[in-house]
Amino acid sequence: MQELLETFEEYLLANLPKSKTIHPHFELALGDMLKAGGKRFRPMLLLSVVKSKKSLLVKNSLSVALGVEFLHTYSLIHDDLPAMDNSDLRRGFQTLHKKYDEVTAILVGDALNTEAFKLIANASLHNDIKIELIKSLSQNGGIDGMIIGQAIDCYFEKQKLSLEDLEFLHIHKTARLIAASLKMGAIICEYEKEIQDKLYDFGLDLGLLFQIQDDIIDETCSSEEAGKTTQNDSFKNSFVNLLGLDEAKKSADKLALKCIETLDSFEDNLKESLEELLLKYINRHKL
Amino acid sequence: MQELLETFEEYLLANLPKSKTIHPHFELALGDMLKAGGKRFRPMLLLSVVKSKKSLLVKNSLSVALGVEFLHTYSLIHDDLPAMDNSDLRRGFQTLHKKYDEVTAILVGDALNTEAFKLIANASLHNDIKIELIKSLSQNGGIDGMIIGQAIDCYFEKQKLSLEDLEFLHIHKTARLIAASLKMGAIICEYEKEIQDKLYDFGLDLGLLFQIQDDIIDETCSSEEAGKTTQNDSFKNSFVNLLGLDEAKKSADKLALKCIETLDSFEDNLKESLEELLLKYINRHKL
Repeated sequence: MQELLETFEEYLLANLPKSKTIHPHFELALGDMLKAGGKRFRPMLLLSVVKSKKSLLVKNSLSVALGVEFLHTYSLIHDDLPAMDNSDLRRGFQTLHKKYDEVTAILVGDALNTEAFKLIANASLHNDIKIELIKSLSQNGGIDGMIIGQAIDCYFEKQKLSLEDLEFLHIHKTARLIAASLKMGAIICEYEKEIQDKLYDFGLDLGLLFQIQDDIIDETCSSEEAGKTTQNDSFKNSFVNLLGLDEAKKSADKLALKCIETLDSFEDNLKESLEELLLKYINRHKL
Repeated sequence: MQELLETFEEYLLANLPKSKTIHPHFELALGDMLKAGGKRFRPMLLLSVVKSKKSLLVKNSLSVALGVEFLHTYSLIHDDLPAMDNSDLRRGFQTLHKKYDEVTAILVGDALNTEAFKLIANASLHNDIKIELIKSLSQNGGIDGMIIGQAIDCYFEKQKLSLEDLEFLHIHKTARLIAASLKMGAIICEYEKEIQDKLYDFGLDLGLLFQIQDDIIDETCSSEEAGKTTQNDSFKNSFVNLLGLDEAKKSADKLALKCIETLDSFEDNLKESLEELLLKYINRHKL
């Protein structure tokens, strides 16, 4: 697992977007948030699935994994904009609109969105596979996925949502891209359709579980323990605010159990590959 | 030509992005700028090339042409944002950040960018062709194309550029997507590589020509004649400000002559198809 992560980090550093022009900082800005770290959870999910079945294909999958990280990173850059979260810091570094200006942050986000599809289209994989990957990423990273989740999150910032709507929000905003990362790994190494779908559903559960855990952590931990600013969520739509702490914990336990059962039902290689990854990430706060 | 445009407009209206959720205006906002008109220059270039060789493929190319229009439209929505041009009107309608809010404008733009690639990936065309189309759109609509042009345009708004840099700006900001539209048409109907490249270069010349003509119109016409606010460009980087009116006109004439010569060198069907289209659009002000 550690080796796989190092391979990915090396690949990322060697393949940061290039843009040598008269613009004094655009190329630098393109790489800033990609280099700033983050846990690389989505690319690691994708690569772990590939490794479980066709480890020789890991190398050819790195650009696809990087594409998923580009898409995720663009969404963070735009979420941090003054019109949305108005955040000054991300991953311990100044956000792009603080370090440079809003124009740079908007355009770097736009660029990474488009570039994600360029990376996949140019990967050394069969065209049939690349088309399935692009379908999956655009389906889950677009209107029917991440974007509508973010739109709902922003619009209903000050209005109480129902449990159903809150789940819809987080499944779309977060879980669908996590699910797509698993499915894309399965597409590359040609797991049968049934496993692809099962991995996708597992990803949805996992994404939702992480969100509920996040809300619980925000409620119960001090900032120091959580590694970020916490106890800010009293006026926000959160599972804890909606269900109460005890019920939120019960929901998380139930989902965790479901995830473990699904994991157990996978064939040995896949199960081991994902277990190793999840042990590292589970209960971490920001994926 | 008129028939082809009507076919495209009908297809667009029937295929506006859908998003039925609790969000009160997101679906509406996704369609607003697409329905607001515009000359559909890029999709028409693509479809005209396809029609010149394989008219039966026009139907299957509509979603690709729509993808190009999505990408172009997202760029207009983001260019209009307060941090960039801060425009209240576009195509005679309120811009999205004026009608709704900035969050909506940012996210609708993001969505149309991603959705462009989804449309192409899901088109009824061979996967090999779709991958080439995605390569071309992402190459010319991304960091090496439209986006770096826009970044340079914004950054050097108040600084005088050299002629070389001004050409670089407009070739990237505008001409590359026009060139890609022609090339993508050629990819679909499988013109040989040489014609694909020639169409692409023709598109670059055409895009630059339109920009110089635009600058000349801004300098010489009243707002009423030009159909938009003009004579605003005295402090902007424009070909007229850099070269003087006479030299700008000479440059435009030279480029126009080059375009006509290239057009004449194409085989009859392609030449006629593009001539008909260009006669309609040439000397129009905003493509």
